[in-house]
Amino acid sequence: MSLIGFDIGGTYIKAGLFDGDLVLLAKKSASFIKEKTYHNIIMIMCGMADELLSLNGQKKEDLSAIGVASAGAVDVENGVVLKAHNLGFYNVPVRKELEGRFPGTPVSVINDAAAATLAEYKKGALQGCKNALLLTLGTGVGGGAIIKGELWRGGNGQGFEPGHITLDINGPLCTCGNRGCIETLCSASWIEKKGGADAKTVIEAAKKGDAGSLGIFREYIENLSTAIASLTAIFDPEIIALGGGLSLAGEFLFKPASEKVREKSFFKYPYKIVGAKTGNDAGITGAVIFVCS
Amino acid sequence: MSLIGFDIGGTYIKAGLFDGDLVLLAKKSASFIKEKTYHNIIMIMCGMADELLSLNGQKKEDLSAIGVASAGAVDVENGVVLKAHNLGFYNVPVRKELEGRFPGTPVSVINDAAAATLAEYKKGALQGCKNALLLTLGTGVGGGAIIKGELWRGGNGQGFEPGHITLDINGPLCTCGNRGCIETLCSASWIEKKGGADAKTVIEAAKKGDAGSLGIFREYIENLSTAIASLTAIFDPEIIALGGGLSLAGEFLFKPASEKVREKSFFKYPYKIVGAKTGNDAGITGAVIFVCS
Repeated sequence: MSLIGFDIGGTYIKAGLFDGDLVLLAKKSASFIKEKTYHNIIMIMCGMADELLSLNGQKKEDLSAIGVASAGAVDVENGVVLKAHNLGFYNVPVRKELEGRFPGTPVSVINDAAAATLAEYKKGALQGCKNALLLTLGTGVGGGAIIKGELWRGGNGQGFEPGHITLDINGPLCTCGNRGCIETLCSASWIEKKGGADAKTVIEAAKKGDAGSLGIFREYIENLSTAIASLTAIFDPEIIALGGGLSLAGEFLFKPASEKVREKSFFKYPYKIVGAKTGNDAGITGAVIFVCS
Repeated sequence: MSLIGFDIGGTYIKAGLFDGDLVLLAKKSASFIKEKTYHNIIMIMCGMADELLSLNGQKKEDLSAIGVASAGAVDVENGVVLKAHNLGFYNVPVRKELEGRFPGTPVSVINDAAAATLAEYKKGALQGCKNALLLTLGTGVGGGAIIKGELWRGGNGQGFEPGHITLDINGPLCTCGNRGCIETLCSASWIEKKGGADAKTVIEAAKKGDAGSLGIFREYIENLSTAIASLTAIFDPEIIALGGGLSLAGEFLFKPASEKVREKSFFKYPYKIVGAKTGNDAGITGAVIFVCS
């Protein structure tokens, strides 16, 4: 039994070959080229799948299922990427396309942050929890929730978008049209705008004690901890994992954020903020977990 | 089979006698006098119960269960009101006290907004939903969530406090110690501060076209709809019911709030905002629903 997981992002398409125990056997990655049509992208994905299978001595017939994680809003029922600005995907029938090329093989499509949440739940930092949160801190802010031991996909199945909770009603304009969304104040982009350099550089400088960078980093911790404290008031999670590029800051970020969250939370509970563990494989791993569920 | 439900609030203690089909047979109310000890309050509650029973030709032995809804933070497992500022209740063992006076009768204690949510779910505006929200707009802002057909009580059982999500990180100080909580910008108190009159008066004047009052009301709608839009980004609920004093404004409030929420929500869905239906009986009704569940 073999499974293939894809992760379609604005920069790379990743593909992984897994065995029936969800052990990753091999992976590949290719550039996502926005100028190409979605048919081209699907063709590239099929090529990656064929290669992964043949390099591992397997045939199309050995493939039990394909899971796809995609950026953007996904209609899970129909396997359609509804809207993914950074992919240029609008109403792309990913499942139908892949099923056409792998007849008889089940295909599922899920949002990438939801996939990452499943990966953390089954194989990462959220293992053993019944109620927990993942926030991904990158160019934007995404995330996922485990509620009562299951991935929460929204009451109407539209997903989970913690990055679009308003944190500052008078704040900067967000891509969604509202002002001061968590995404505008807690993303790597916020640090980059404030610091005039990429977020990694600013954080490294803060670690070394540079006063200006440290000031920006402290303000970031205030924003992030206020956002997480808001989430604790309604989810009261057992644990909060942070993924995405900014989470590479490690304990330098987690420790002060945990302290501030405990200070600001309405409920008095030793909320713990930890790093996500599945890293770059989160999307492909969660995609196969979902197609097997 | 008889059931008694209590609702302990900062102004009144309410009590209701229900039959096994949760039909309200009779109710009473008494002033909550903050100067009294909790023992006195419990004695008053017992007197109300005795009276309801005897007036309806029933004895203590006919009583199957007692449900209590209380303001503040409640430890449901142990039936203790942990912290209710406006009652002056701190670690009050309500269940133990009532069980001492009604030996053999099961007693449960739950937060009043959670009780109201159950009441709306079983007998009010949220009937038939699997995922829905109630917000209570009064002196403060409380609420409850139905998730997957059940009352959501938080991942660690501490409750659900949507009023303490930050809406304006630089906003006015909240009783919880943070700034710009939904409670500070969406409560009746906000309207009262802005209008220099009680919220009902301001809203009545706005209905009659008074420009100043209308301006305040419109700003309130902006605040409330931004808060509700934030909640839709993570709960994606089928319906949102509004209770509490401000909900008496009716369609004058619900209609513009619905329009603004649809405009601001990340997910494109015809979110509907409706009035809660169980009114003053929400607490006592939800309390008996909970003790029977």
